[in-house]
Amino acid sequence: MIYKALETLDKTFGIERAKAHCDVPCGIYDPITAQIAALTVVRMVDLMSDLVANQSGQDLAFQNSMSRYVAVKEEHAENAKHEVRVIWGDYIKANHVEEHPELPGLAHQIMQLGSKCRQTADREVAVQFVEAINQFAEIFWKTKGVAIKRAKAPYAPALELVYPDL
Amino acid sequence: MIYKALETLDKTFGIERAKAHCDVPCGIYDPITAQIAALTVVRMVDLMSDLVANQSGQDLAFQNSMSRYVAVKEEHAENAKHEVRVIWGDYIKANHVEEHPELPGLAHQIMQLGSKCRQTADREVAVQFVEAINQFAEIFWKTKGVAIKRAKAPYAPALELVYPDL
Amino acid sequence: MIYKALETLDKTFGIERAKAHCDVPCGIYDPITAQIAALTVVRMVDLMSDLVANQSGQDLAFQNSMSRYVAVKEEHAENAKHEVRVIWGDYIKANHVEEHPELPGLAHQIMQLGSKCRQTADREVAVQFVEAINQFAEIFWKTKGVAIKRAKAPYAPALELVYPDL
Amino acid sequence: MIYKALETLDKTFGIERAKAHCDVPCGIYDPITAQIAALTVVRMVDLMSDLVANQSGQDLAFQNSMSRYVAVKEEHAENAKHEVRVIWGDYIKANHVEEHPELPGLAHQIMQLGSKCRQTADREVAVQFVEAINQFAEIFWKTKGVAIKRAKAPYAPALELVYPDL
Amino acid sequence: MIYKALETLDKTFGIERAKAHCDVPCGIYDPITAQIAALTVVRMVDLMSDLVANQSGQDLAFQNSMSRYVAVKEEHAENAKHEVRVIWGDYIKANHVEEHPELPGLAHQIMQLGSKCRQTADREVAVQFVEAINQFAEIFWKTKGVAIKRAKAPYAPALELVYPDL
Amino acid sequence: MIYKALETLDKTFGIERAKAHCDVPCGIYDPITAQIAALTVVRMVDLMSDLVANQSGQDLAFQNSMSRYVAVKEEHAENAKHEVRVIWGDYIKANHVEEHPELPGLAHQIMQLGSKCRQTADREVAVQFVEAINQFAEIFWKTKGVAIKRAKAPYAPALELVYPDL
Repeated sequence: MIYKALETLDKTFGIERAKAHCDVPCGIYDPITAQIAALTVVRMVDLMSDLVANQSGQDLAFQNSMSRYVAVKEEHAENAKHEVRVIWGDYIKANHVEEHPELPGLAHQIMQLGSKCRQTADREVAVQFVEAINQFAEIFWKTKGVAIKRAKAPYAPALELVYPDL
Repeated sequence: MIYKALETLDKTFGIERAKAHCDVPCGIYDPITAQIAALTVVRMVDLMSDLVANQSGQDLAFQNSMSRYVAVKEEHAENAKHEVRVIWGDYIKANHVEEHPELPGLAHQIMQLGSKCRQTADREVAVQFVEAINQFAEIFWKTKGVAIKRAKAPYAPALELVYPDL
Repeated sequence: MIYKALETLDKTFGIERAKAHCDVPCGIYDPITAQIAALTVVRMVDLMSDLVANQSGQDLAFQNSMSRYVAVKEEHAENAKHEVRVIWGDYIKANHVEEHPELPGLAHQIMQLGSKCRQTADREVAVQFVEAINQFAEIFWKTKGVAIKRAKAPYAPALELVYPDL
Repeated sequence: MIYKALETLDKTFGIERAKAHCDVPCGIYDPITAQIAALTVVRMVDLMSDLVANQSGQDLAFQNSMSRYVAVKEEHAENAKHEVRVIWGDYIKANHVEEHPELPGLAHQIMQLGSKCRQTADREVAVQFVEAINQFAEIFWKTKGVAIKRAKAPYAPALELVYPDL
Repeated sequence: MIYKALETLDKTFGIERAKAHCDVPCGIYDPITAQIAALTVVRMVDLMSDLVANQSGQDLAFQNSMSRYVAVKEEHAENAKHEVRVIWGDYIKANHVEEHPELPGLAHQIMQLGSKCRQTADREVAVQFVEAINQFAEIFWKTKGVAIKRAKAPYAPALELVYPDL
Repeated sequence: MIYKALETLDKTFGIERAKAHCDVPCGIYDPITAQIAALTVVRMVDLMSDLVANQSGQDLAFQNSMSRYVAVKEEHAENAKHEVRVIWGDYIKANHVEEHPELPGLAHQIMQLGSKCRQTADREVAVQFVEAINQFAEIFWKTKGVAIKRAKAPYAPALELVYPDL
């Protein structure tokens, strides 16, 4: 919701913005929210696999945990898709697409991977989802002129994420 | 949420689906939800204009109505964007994009128009939003092999919408 | 939320509205949203039955899909009830009830059927839910003076829905 | 959501329930949630009036508070309607309506009053909303065989509410 | 949302409020919402146990009910935590903590118990959750100078709740 | 929702966890979500001030933007409070409180500041809100044994945030 609000301000200072479109951060867009959500999808798949591997029967505890892991996986896969849509749909402009012609296809691929993450409990797909959003984050920070680095997330499953190098 | 569920089933009958990708309706996707939401945005802009035109001061009734119209406009512009994202991100596949190469640009334009609908109370922008989603609906029904027609919506602001011709 | 907003406007033009209560469309009410939601309930019951019929054990994929189908069924049965409540509670006035004395009972029956759709995975109940909302839609369009038709929905489970004949 | 879940259990003990339909509490329905929400609507109208009466201009603080009061009023009027719909639609059965034939009309009236509470900042309407829900609560507790009392709510605006006499 | 709105008004009458901090009810805070939610958690655990005890296999009806009970348990445990957070975070002031030094620990314990209620289907934990929130309610009503009583809730599982003695 | 899920797994490997309570990251808790939300509150206050300063009258555009800024401020102040509650209530254990006795008071202060951020459009309060959450983040990362750094956020209002030093 915030994202669109910011453009209104930009119009107030229209000329300055027209001159400096790419180097003025115009809003609080941050792909980290989508990245954390995608990482959570991987974590849930891991928990689901562990649950199946470690429990002998399908008792009450199993049913309780399994239902919850699936629901958390659903929610975070959807959140990740939503957050990417917001950046793609609201922040990304025609000139960004010209400079990074892979953007529309990448955004579309993220949506499709997010769907697969919901439909399955396939770890490989979930890891691809994280990586596709990492690539999206990399392009995003490039458009803002912010250098990036890769580092392991400080929590399980500790996959590598793209971070701005502040 | 339903959309992704359906693909799981498709896998169960994998071969049939591979053979008949375009003529099997694979899910309950319907752009009418986005179209009604966009129409509601136009209606809210009309109500906001009427309110300003007809009330002399900014009394309690004015404040109450104005706040509510803005909130309803926000909500429905966002809903329309969300619904289009679901069809674009979950239903549309690579072969659809090949047949309708304008799709990625149109989806992106709808997101940008939705942003403007939230940032402003500009009727012209809201009407463009309705029409862009109409074009999206037209392509969508084409991919399903369903004929379309155009008719005035049976409620104010009574703009023309694209409907499947059932 | 939009529905109540509209009555405020009506007051601004109070005399005209008093004269033409029944033939002026006063808001963007459309039962199609409830109808699509009810159809989705049927679809989910079908997917649940297929899942049980086609999978040998209750592995991770089964658990994942089953949890999701139930959640989607819940959500759409609730949405359908909510949408009918909005039309019944906000649009329907005393004179409509006089003309269609079956309305209160029908609205109540829809709520009860929606409850059963959530509590069970019984296809027959879900089909009754769709049909009761069809009847509600039929009365709704009658109160607006809009002719209706019946046609098969252009997506599985392809049940007949009541549509305005535009 | 809980309400429907409970009926499933009832079926497990089908015969007992058939015998004792009216005197077995079958779920955690409690009209107090709707009553508190309606009371909140009155409170918001009071705060809105105070704000207009006490502030000289429409500065930032005024705008901030007014927008928030309207939003809170919206939310709680809607919540009250939703809670009444749940009890009316899910708990109330045909035999309750026979014993209390005023129920369908009362439920409908509550919906209409809730709409007016959203459209206006009229204290009288909001007080009627509270009282109509009180009447609904009175009938509800009667169907459960629980005695009631009336007492002032222990918080502003301290209107009388119907409580079960425990 | 309402809770914070109320403090704004208090400022308008700043001196009175400074003089009478403890005996003026400043908002519509009511722990009953959290108490009903916690009771619902116990109810769901009971329904889950009954389901496992009474059904022979894990057919469609079992899957449907179990998924729903877990989801309802999740939702209400979270709601109870949220409602307690609102009272603790928004209503409770430094002077309340001085008079009731057990408050921070109790609020924290409620959060932890709520977590356990979600992670398990352990009735004992759910009953502790209800009781911890009862203790919280008792302190809350004390800070308002309202006498309390204990009575069995008028619906299953009919545990004792703390009520204001009105 | 994810947070509680993780502890279930911990129990599966109970002994290891008992031995290594503090140095095993047990879940995907990350204060950055709360920090971004708080920063957004500051941004909204800035936009609200700019709007008042730059627009001559209270036309439709003013009303539209002001309503939206207030709503976005509300939402993000609440989100920040919610995220802090989750970490405080679910992740923080008794031993953390022993090592960092300021934690309960700090968590409570964040709730109170969040309330003030909603009630007012006071930039100073919003900046304090950001800083209090920074302190919370600093303690959080300390409990995980992760070094921190301070850096300006790569978007307006570019306040300093606490980041893990990865």
